[in-house]
Amino acid sequence: MHANHTPTLTLACELIARPSVTPEDAGCLDLISARLQALGFTCERIDTGGVSNLWARRGSQAPVLCLAGHTDVVPPGPAAAWDTPPFEPNLRDGLLYGRGAADMKTSLAAFVTAIERFVSACPDHEGSIALLLTSDEEGVATHGTVKVVEALAARGERIDYCIVGEPTSVSTLGDMIKNGRRGSLSGSLRVKGLQGHVAYPQLARNPIHLFAPALAELAAIRWDEGNEFFPPTTWQVSNIHAGTGANNVIPGVCEVLFNFRFGSVSTADDLKRRTCEILDRHGLDYEIDWHLSGKPFITGRGQLVRALSAAIHDTVGVTTELSTTGGTSDGRFIADICPEVVEFGPVNATIHKINECVAIDAVEPLSAIYERTLAALLQPAG
Amino acid sequence: MHANHTPTLTLACELIARPSVTPEDAGCLDLISARLQALGFTCERIDTGGVSNLWARRGSQAPVLCLAGHTDVVPPGPAAAWDTPPFEPNLRDGLLYGRGAADMKTSLAAFVTAIERFVSACPDHEGSIALLLTSDEEGVATHGTVKVVEALAARGERIDYCIVGEPTSVSTLGDMIKNGRRGSLSGSLRVKGLQGHVAYPQLARNPIHLFAPALAELAAIRWDEGNEFFPPTTWQVSNIHAGTGANNVIPGVCEVLFNFRFGSVSTADDLKRRTCEILDRHGLDYEIDWHLSGKPFITGRGQLVRALSAAIHDTVGVTTELSTTGGTSDGRFIADICPEVVEFGPVNATIHKINECVAIDAVEPLSAIYERTLAALLQPAG
Ligand SMILES: [Zn+2]
Ligand SMILES: [Zn+2]
Repeated sequence: MHANHTPTLTLACELIARPSVTPEDAGCLDLISARLQALGFTCERIDTGGVSNLWARRGSQAPVLCLAGHTDVVPPGPAAAWDTPPFEPNLRDGLLYGRGAADMKTSLAAFVTAIERFVSACPDHEGSIALLLTSDEEGVATHGTVKVVEALAARGERIDYCIVGEPTSVSTLGDMIKNGRRGSLSGSLRVKGLQGHVAYPQLARNPIHLFAPALAELAAIRWDEGNEFFPPTTWQVSNIHAGTGANNVIPGVCEVLFNFRFGSVSTADDLKRRTCEILDRHGLDYEIDWHLSGKPFITGRGQLVRALSAAIHDTVGVTTELSTTGGTSDGRFIADICPEVVEFGPVNATIHKINECVAIDAVEPLSAIYERTLAALLQPAG
Repeated sequence: MHANHTPTLTLACELIARPSVTPEDAGCLDLISARLQALGFTCERIDTGGVSNLWARRGSQAPVLCLAGHTDVVPPGPAAAWDTPPFEPNLRDGLLYGRGAADMKTSLAAFVTAIERFVSACPDHEGSIALLLTSDEEGVATHGTVKVVEALAARGERIDYCIVGEPTSVSTLGDMIKNGRRGSLSGSLRVKGLQGHVAYPQLARNPIHLFAPALAELAAIRWDEGNEFFPPTTWQVSNIHAGTGANNVIPGVCEVLFNFRFGSVSTADDLKRRTCEILDRHGLDYEIDWHLSGKPFITGRGQLVRALSAAIHDTVGVTTELSTTGGTSDGRFIADICPEVVEFGPVNATIHKINECVAIDAVEPLSAIYERTLAALLQPAG
């Protein structure tokens, strides 16, 4: 550790040095818990299914401001491809390198140091501060945040504001907050025909041919126009399979996987109904299995967005943009027990890549932004 | 062997008892060669690539009337599924059972006995009688009839009339002659897109979506109207594959296998050009590999069709129908060195199936039809 390491940078390095590839936590939660317990947090481990989860809370009153995230990282790939080993934090050229530097161990370090400064300055804050951390966000995510949320819901514990520390900034720290995410609805479709020999098509029904006009129509539809918060709903086929390889056999079935990403304009039920209407209108014989892997959630320009945007502007002078693009995140689970959920963290350009890194001069400002948001929402008036 | 076996039925049983699953001949050609040599045939084995082939000829003059066929059979499947073992010829309820009974060992037996009677009655026939047999018609067929035809072509030997003994009859012996076959043109198409994440379709190009309108158009086209001899050309997709199973990835390529069956109205070059025009018009980025597995051939109402139709009518009283439907056959190869090629044989209802069989009372009439055709074309006038 260099002498000139700031507190947040030091903790970020300590976390990166722990090789917590999903679903391993590798001691990250113990390190964070020890720091929080020293501040008077009650730390509760809700480990299940091989996944390590932490719910830590300071205070018993509302409002509850929760900082949420994950200690796990995606696999580093071949270590030899990295300029320096992925689990040895390295500072060079103004950047902190290491797996998890951007997604999202720097955010976790910034959470902890922000809380430390805020509690030190304001030990008798209003409401409660909470941390919700998991070691399974990058994986299947079935035993992570969703289990903590279920445990909290079961005992009637709720959250008022939540900041998920995902790396949401695009070009420079603070330029983007995610104030919601689209929903994800998948369909597994089997279009049925009648198998036969290509020399006798009149005795067969080719499900590829039968499906083609419906597919062309589905691919061309503009499902909705989006709204203030969400881009238009999209529909994409990820897989289509028919035929066993033989080139003289008309297959009996065509199997298709597709996925909707949708905002708050269309509902999952709308999209299901409209899909089936098209398949029916084309006279298809089909089966379809639906899977709703995430409902959309949206947080309007309320208390939390205002506080966080102001903290960003006051810290780094950037006017932040709200966005709901991108994949799903654990925010979708927390939204079930929290009316205002946003995601905010460092620049995401290198996440999940070789030589993942974050700008060193953005590390302490990130902590300052979280601290200012805590102060705006939990500091007693006057 | 029962005492009441007729000569053709006896020989058919002897051939069925030889388990000649492709590309095995199992001694069938030796048995046939011995019978032909006794009649003064010159028998030439043109074995290659593990395949047994026979070219047998009696006479050196034109016209050459060739009887052609195959000794190989398709695998019997599970022997237990048969009522009697597939390679033990069995007579019951007026039927001869066994693998190859219909496709096409009864035809081979009828060839031999027809020739025996004809040569006995007319030892100084005009022209030449030939037999062209292979043990690889049901398989890949790359070392079978095509190799014999190449050998004959290389030494300038040609055929004037050819009857391939494939089982062409539909309901009753003699109701259908195949006087040609459609061509078969296959295409292996790769439509290229740009791989990406389903959450960011604007950064990807989905080849399934891009291909869909072209697919719908290709499936709806009426390529031609057919003609006197051929039904309209058909186009069928046998395989379509895109995606690796992951349902959050837009695939980078969509792979498609398709097949044209076409008559003499459209040429293979026409069909290629028209296919590419459509793919180009839809702006697709693609590669396509073409494989012409059989050119169409057609034999009009000439000497051979007239002689065979008359022989059928005189023997079984049936007015035969000409047809070009169905899959390819070795006739496509022989057509390269022979202007008149037809296929004619027993009822094909049970070919390639469990309990393959042929009607016993159709066995000697089949031999008689072949004999009458030999006589019509090779008996000296007066
Ligand atoms: Zn993350
Ligand atoms: Zn056959």
